[in-house]
Amino acid sequence: MDASSLRALLDDVAAGRCTPDDAVRRLRRLPFSDLGFARVDHHRDLRLGMPEAVYGPGKTPEQCAAVVGELLAATDGPVLLTRATEVQVKAAMAAGTALGHAPGTVADSGLFATVVFRPAPARAGTVVVITAGTADLPVAHECTAVLDALGFSATLLPDCGVAGLHRLLAELDTLSSADAVVVVAGMEGALASVVGGLTPAPVVAVPTSTGYGAALEGVTALLTMLSACSSGITVVGIDNGYGAACAVARILP
Amino acid sequence: MDASSLRALLDDVAAGRCTPDDAVRRLRRLPFSDLGFARVDHHRDLRLGMPEAVYGPGKTPEQCAAVVGELLAATDGPVLLTRATEVQVKAAMAAGTALGHAPGTVADSGLFATVVFRPAPARAGTVVVITAGTADLPVAHECTAVLDALGFSATLLPDCGVAGLHRLLAELDTLSSADAVVVVAGMEGALASVVGGLTPAPVVAVPTSTGYGAALEGVTALLTMLSACSSGITVVGIDNGYGAACAVARILP
Amino acid sequence: MDASSLRALLDDVAAGRCTPDDAVRRLRRLPFSDLGFARVDHHRDLRLGMPEAVYGPGKTPEQCAAVVGELLAATDGPVLLTRATEVQVKAAMAAGTALGHAPGTVADSGLFATVVFRPAPARAGTVVVITAGTADLPVAHECTAVLDALGFSATLLPDCGVAGLHRLLAELDTLSSADAVVVVAGMEGALASVVGGLTPAPVVAVPTSTGYGAALEGVTALLTMLSACSSGITVVGIDNGYGAACAVARILP
Amino acid sequence: MDASSLRALLDDVAAGRCTPDDAVRRLRRLPFSDLGFARVDHHRDLRLGMPEAVYGPGKTPEQCAAVVGELLAATDGPVLLTRATEVQVKAAMAAGTALGHAPGTVADSGLFATVVFRPAPARAGTVVVITAGTADLPVAHECTAVLDALGFSATLLPDCGVAGLHRLLAELDTLSSADAVVVVAGMEGALASVVGGLTPAPVVAVPTSTGYGAALEGVTALLTMLSACSSGITVVGIDNGYGAACAVARILP
Amino acid sequence: MDASSLRALLDDVAAGRCTPDDAVRRLRRLPFSDLGFARVDHHRDLRLGMPEAVYGPGKTPEQCAAVVGELLAATDGPVLLTRATEVQVKAAMAAGTALGHAPGTVADSGLFATVVFRPAPARAGTVVVITAGTADLPVAHECTAVLDALGFSATLLPDCGVAGLHRLLAELDTLSSADAVVVVAGMEGALASVVGGLTPAPVVAVPTSTGYGAALEGVTALLTMLSACSSGITVVGIDNGYGAACAVARILP
Amino acid sequence: MDASSLRALLDDVAAGRCTPDDAVRRLRRLPFSDLGFARVDHHRDLRLGMPEAVYGPGKTPEQCAAVVGELLAATDGPVLLTRATEVQVKAAMAAGTALGHAPGTVADSGLFATVVFRPAPARAGTVVVITAGTADLPVAHECTAVLDALGFSATLLPDCGVAGLHRLLAELDTLSSADAVVVVAGMEGALASVVGGLTPAPVVAVPTSTGYGAALEGVTALLTMLSACSSGITVVGIDNGYGAACAVARILP
Amino acid sequence: MDASSLRALLDDVAAGRCTPDDAVRRLRRLPFSDLGFARVDHHRDLRLGMPEAVYGPGKTPEQCAAVVGELLAATDGPVLLTRATEVQVKAAMAAGTALGHAPGTVADSGLFATVVFRPAPARAGTVVVITAGTADLPVAHECTAVLDALGFSATLLPDCGVAGLHRLLAELDTLSSADAVVVVAGMEGALASVVGGLTPAPVVAVPTSTGYGAALEGVTALLTMLSACSSGITVVGIDNGYGAACAVARILP
Amino acid sequence: MDASSLRALLDDVAAGRCTPDDAVRRLRRLPFSDLGFARVDHHRDLRLGMPEAVYGPGKTPEQCAAVVGELLAATDGPVLLTRATEVQVKAAMAAGTALGHAPGTVADSGLFATVVFRPAPARAGTVVVITAGTADLPVAHECTAVLDALGFSATLLPDCGVAGLHRLLAELDTLSSADAVVVVAGMEGALASVVGGLTPAPVVAVPTSTGYGAALEGVTALLTMLSACSSGITVVGIDNGYGAACAVARILP
Repeated sequence: MDASSLRALLDDVAAGRCTPDDAVRRLRRLPFSDLGFARVDHHRDLRLGMPEAVYGPGKTPEQCAAVVGELLAATDGPVLLTRATEVQVKAAMAAGTALGHAPGTVADSGLFATVVFRPAPARAGTVVVITAGTADLPVAHECTAVLDALGFSATLLPDCGVAGLHRLLAELDTLSSADAVVVVAGMEGALASVVGGLTPAPVVAVPTSTGYGAALEGVTALLTMLSACSSGITVVGIDNGYGAACAVARILP
Repeated sequence: MDASSLRALLDDVAAGRCTPDDAVRRLRRLPFSDLGFARVDHHRDLRLGMPEAVYGPGKTPEQCAAVVGELLAATDGPVLLTRATEVQVKAAMAAGTALGHAPGTVADSGLFATVVFRPAPARAGTVVVITAGTADLPVAHECTAVLDALGFSATLLPDCGVAGLHRLLAELDTLSSADAVVVVAGMEGALASVVGGLTPAPVVAVPTSTGYGAALEGVTALLTMLSACSSGITVVGIDNGYGAACAVARILP
Repeated sequence: MDASSLRALLDDVAAGRCTPDDAVRRLRRLPFSDLGFARVDHHRDLRLGMPEAVYGPGKTPEQCAAVVGELLAATDGPVLLTRATEVQVKAAMAAGTALGHAPGTVADSGLFATVVFRPAPARAGTVVVITAGTADLPVAHECTAVLDALGFSATLLPDCGVAGLHRLLAELDTLSSADAVVVVAGMEGALASVVGGLTPAPVVAVPTSTGYGAALEGVTALLTMLSACSSGITVVGIDNGYGAACAVARILP
Repeated sequence: MDASSLRALLDDVAAGRCTPDDAVRRLRRLPFSDLGFARVDHHRDLRLGMPEAVYGPGKTPEQCAAVVGELLAATDGPVLLTRATEVQVKAAMAAGTALGHAPGTVADSGLFATVVFRPAPARAGTVVVITAGTADLPVAHECTAVLDALGFSATLLPDCGVAGLHRLLAELDTLSSADAVVVVAGMEGALASVVGGLTPAPVVAVPTSTGYGAALEGVTALLTMLSACSSGITVVGIDNGYGAACAVARILP
Repeated sequence: MDASSLRALLDDVAAGRCTPDDAVRRLRRLPFSDLGFARVDHHRDLRLGMPEAVYGPGKTPEQCAAVVGELLAATDGPVLLTRATEVQVKAAMAAGTALGHAPGTVADSGLFATVVFRPAPARAGTVVVITAGTADLPVAHECTAVLDALGFSATLLPDCGVAGLHRLLAELDTLSSADAVVVVAGMEGALASVVGGLTPAPVVAVPTSTGYGAALEGVTALLTMLSACSSGITVVGIDNGYGAACAVARILP
Repeated sequence: MDASSLRALLDDVAAGRCTPDDAVRRLRRLPFSDLGFARVDHHRDLRLGMPEAVYGPGKTPEQCAAVVGELLAATDGPVLLTRATEVQVKAAMAAGTALGHAPGTVADSGLFATVVFRPAPARAGTVVVITAGTADLPVAHECTAVLDALGFSATLLPDCGVAGLHRLLAELDTLSSADAVVVVAGMEGALASVVGGLTPAPVVAVPTSTGYGAALEGVTALLTMLSACSSGITVVGIDNGYGAACAVARILP
Repeated sequence: MDASSLRALLDDVAAGRCTPDDAVRRLRRLPFSDLGFARVDHHRDLRLGMPEAVYGPGKTPEQCAAVVGELLAATDGPVLLTRATEVQVKAAMAAGTALGHAPGTVADSGLFATVVFRPAPARAGTVVVITAGTADLPVAHECTAVLDALGFSATLLPDCGVAGLHRLLAELDTLSSADAVVVVAGMEGALASVVGGLTPAPVVAVPTSTGYGAALEGVTALLTMLSACSSGITVVGIDNGYGAACAVARILP
Repeated sequence: MDASSLRALLDDVAAGRCTPDDAVRRLRRLPFSDLGFARVDHHRDLRLGMPEAVYGPGKTPEQCAAVVGELLAATDGPVLLTRATEVQVKAAMAAGTALGHAPGTVADSGLFATVVFRPAPARAGTVVVITAGTADLPVAHECTAVLDALGFSATLLPDCGVAGLHRLLAELDTLSSADAVVVVAGMEGALASVVGGLTPAPVVAVPTSTGYGAALEGVTALLTMLSACSSGITVVGIDNGYGAACAVARILP
């Protein structure tokens, strides 16, 4: 709740258009629906310019369907389901279709799926998502699906790891023209440092849990990216393709 | 080296304005000066829009002075010295003054100093740097000094930790008007999550090594920020005020 | 064994009402039943005001049934089974019903179940259990089930994470009227800090293993809560809803 | 800010005693003083029942003196300085005396000092602080000094580690009569588990960084206490005697 | 190979009873059988007083059977199979029975089994194995099975965790009469410290991976035991009941 | 791309044999095929003397088959598939056979398989791969299969752990004659230190995730090998038999 | 307190030789002196066969002197001061001499000192303390000094690391004749595994914080020793030479 | 001791040229001198082709001088002192000069010094040591000093971090002509991956403790290098320039 809406409410009170008791009640009637097990945040889109994605893990298929349905019905903004299992996706899709929304982008990695039920209007801004290896694709696909939901149309450059620098250098032009770059890399995550040295654009690095042994399920790539010798690289959590897409939405006006 | 400069060079070769041997030599004559112990990167400003800061640790005062002098003499861009000790600062200042440059911003935390010898021209963009506690100020000051070097004039909001939410809410207007927010917090680092929920602007979180015991010298705040429930927050390394400022420079055009 | 019962025993010896040999024997006849694989602690309720919950993992269904049966038959206090699998629950319920006890509260998260066979008499004290997200509900439900067994009737406030502060602020009155608050949060666990700053009541924080990647299976939330900038917050182990309920029972007289 | 004060303000607006603009201004005029580098929280005592202790590390002696002075002058509640160095203590004491406040309890461990400038009125409640070894005394003394500031008069039982159970059992009566017990232990921290099994009172465990090698600077004791087999023990951060005292203040009404 | 057998061999060479070439060959003909995938160590019993247990993980059922058969046929010492799955046990038992050896002790925890095919002759020495909870029994049973294979007949005291000290104190006489004590405990592992303070006998502590969350799969108990405030406690690896039994065999002559 | 090929291209431009535009295009036409999801690196063999192995995890069986087929068809160098599941192996084998390549070495550990479709020509150099236990064999077999693909014919010495030094000393001659030694060991990994003290040849140590509890899934062996008191031992990642074979290929000319 | 002394006390009560009140008092009059800051344990020698060493860290020189003096005056058993600084040693020595006790063994590593004021009578049993390198000597000297206090006369074999196996094998006879072996090793700690394979005697391994980088201040050696492939090795905490000596005292009757 | 020398000894015994007792004695008279606190290994040079460097930490200046003197006097091979303080260097130099050896290479980083008293004869093989930043120079200098002692003359390429790829690419020719490359890098250590993709030569990576915060004192660079996506890179311990040089000596014949 920001100052201007508070001001409007107080004006109503001062003008007698709203009693103090009503004002307290309205201040309480906050912009979310209480489903019992979840509080759906209808104003997040307005407040932060991004939707509250429905996060699958820990929810029953029915709960997924209920929250997706509530969001589709009660808001106008983008709606998406993330990290969902096959059963969750199925239940949520039924709910969406019942409301007249056939899902758009569906990124299904086998491990988890991202489903966009209603995307935001198209936004300007050239976004490049680049991965070190093919094993990083599930996370990259989550990122591009969420970018899609947010109105961006991203270019995906897979398999550009630094072990063969020429594969990366061949994409220099594409990199150079990007307004924001998301680097998705597991194992040692060195790609972020190298990309950071090649472009002045914002670089959001996503460490992935790709690799085994000393890759420590993404911790190695995470530490690498946080310690990158190229200045000004920022990092999101391990395997957090969703978070990287949201970071891009904050960055590109 | 990008495609267009390569193209220009090849045009020269094709036109006979440059022999193949010269071309190879020019391709080798890369944009840095070799001081023996360091390779000063003159083109970083052009390439990435940010200066190569002289990083103090591990350099003798003489080396600091030499690199600062080289950068001031051979480039036009911003020049700064970071994480420097008192002796390093003194040596570098002497070198700068000898070249006619009186340092501008000097942020000295007692632990380490940041010195701006030549700032970039002023850039648009409202940047807010907010800290959880007073103990986070050294890192915040490094950040604002580097922002200064990069041409930004940041607003510093100290001591807004979530233990007293009203201190933060009192600054809602300032936060709301920012084009980019840097959150500097140690201990449990919860401030980043809360700020991320209050503004749609890009949020760069800097975990600090403030606190003791379970704060694990910044690792706790780092993990908190990476796991923040507010979407789209990005993170830089522990105590890396410098990196956060550079990230802002990448973000704000 | 406390000083007064020792005194009573010694009085008996001095008065000849008890021979020294009998006294040694009685001092040995400690208040537990030895089932061969487990020593059921009949006096824990008296000694500590809380039941010895039967902890499921590592016990066969038969062992669960045997211990539950022993406790129902030999004591008057509350009896509950925690972290049980479906098969364990079934076996224990059969044993309970055979003894005339139909279980009351059953909290089944799919991952593990908590079953209350006999609750303690109702106790005064307003307890609020608040969660950051829906994924924290299994742990919160374990907590409320155990509170139920201990005689408390807790209010559950789900999905109040700090990414949308208004959801939390809408519950300020409920929070303010609580005699004890249990905060259940995974990911970055920042909710504990914010709640701690809003209420003077005891706050018991339960980190959960919700989230992925840098959430480190609850370690991140744990460290956050231990480093909370709000003073006087206490913490129990990861996913330990049971422990939080017991802590409340120690706190509220 | 709670609902009742909001209600009062709205009543004023409705009654014309306060214009909407003034109301917004008053809602902004939050209960802290801005010293430039710190925001002194005058209402914390009212809001949370505990003072905002001045945390020494990272502050100059002058800043310590300024905050202590501000708190003594502008509030009526308890004022204390924690984790302070000798120089900080000296500066703050001068400020306090200038305002007519001679400090009461001073706990100086050689490592850091806790100074109580003005205690809260005496409060009921028997608090026992028990340590495993003499090396845990600095943390225990911080705890008792803060308890003193909060109005409690704690009993300190030093050197009761479980290697010699009889030392602990000799204090059973004292333990049994306590309304709250703080266990301060480093090395393996087993004392918390044993004490938890001997008393039904709330037990707040403080791991200390006592010990070397596998004690891992307190992490071992911390993990031990979090995993304690005695139910309902709560834990604060490593070496956080201050936090334990505040937790007691939340617990004892 | 020790000095005396070398001396004997050299005497043979000096006496012409053995040619130098034969001596080299004999020095090479080392006391193991090469099965291609494993080198069965026939002399380990002689050299170290303990058998080479066949460690199940990573071996096919056929390999388990082959090694067990080889050991039963070629040596006279104790033979046992550890950490075996049901299929491995079945295959090895068939091989043993074919050789006329019906296995004696079989400890099957559901997780893994320990099978003794041929025990060592009975040895003197009173060994007590004590566990904190019932969940520690699988590891304790591995330990007692291996002690059985080594000729010891251990007393098992289950469920004596320190949360109910009286359960432990009731066994003081049994503990006092032991020549060696093995403490098996997970969660916080405090039992080792307390037992160490009650007996002057050697105490071998086995941390177990019992517990969840902050128990960190045994690391917490391990650290606790290594930092135990009772002096002279020694520790083996997590869940290593086998190692503890071998340590006892080294200790008791 | 090295200087000489660049020189040749520039000569062509200078001689008019190649227009500048063509040169830029050729510089872009980098030596890989873009399969959409992967960039197959045809020149890796030339550039680094080793093939780009197809890494199974994260690829569909169809993707495995496609990349293997592409490599077999478009290059002359060695082709292999690593860390593949049964289904991946089957799909890739079909693709290989379709192209007339029946796979040679197939190392299948049950956990993962390594398949060599086309080995490099035989190379000189005696390579010994030595393991501490039989449980280390899967990793050792990956290593020998990759060595086979690289043209080496390695000697495998299994089960030579330091608990029975004589098993190792019996192989001294084989060890002494090796041009490179790969030590594969889990648990405590001490074999690497001992082997390093017995041979002057290059020693590449591979920690394995063999063992349980304090073996920490290979981290213990990794740390041991990195801290080895024998000088000049080098280490690759946990379970990285592939990497060790490649390191040998770099070492032996 | 064991059953027999309890029995004797109860006999006295039954016989009227002791009133119940006196009995309670005597049960309370536990065998320690309360010095205010420490509880000196006079009966530890009787109870556990080993003295309560005065642990230096965290005690003032005066406190060290007081405890040493108390122990020398009130007991007959061995008295020693461990991990003491130069000032602590000086103060304690003055106290000891004042009581007529000139300290015997003094092991001063520069880092910390161990002082034996009164040793136990000589005990049988051959103890060997073996170190991997010279840098492990401070810990080994602490161990031998404590063994001296406990009545043992240990043989020290320094610098026998496995990088030069012959140095170790040259001491095979000494090793073979030992009743107990203490292995003191830092870096990778492999010596423990090798020694464990060469002797059937009890092996107590002490990891040291020797080494840098990946040695992780002793954690690497600790993990190595816990995972040793030689069975039956036991481990004490990092740098805990004192604990190893006490373990030997428990082992050798 | 290898088979051929054993054979020769046995021949002597068979021929009566050596009695069995003498043979045992000679087998014992191992190739080291026992200085009491250290066993100087005279044959390491012969056995492993590399000297036993005198490792400074934990030795008194006198001990350093004694070992250096012993090695200079009793062997012909290379002698060097590593990780020495100024006082240790001074003492050792005096000893060396007294024996007629003026030290050659002295690499003094301020943190620690490496001194070569007698180098090995010059060896063939082009070795390149490349660093990411100037802060990595101390470790790189240790490496080049040890390479000097081993007879190599290495080329040092400082400050080639991947943030400015052109600095690295400018040295492609030097890299390409190397027989072995040592990569010394802290922070994120990405340089190793990139260099590994550019050269087919053996790459030995040395992580350094350069950097702060998330660089975790070298652990980040270590993990990066172990997980490098370029195949066949090997790694030594953190800051272990000495080990890298020895690894090169094993690799280059």
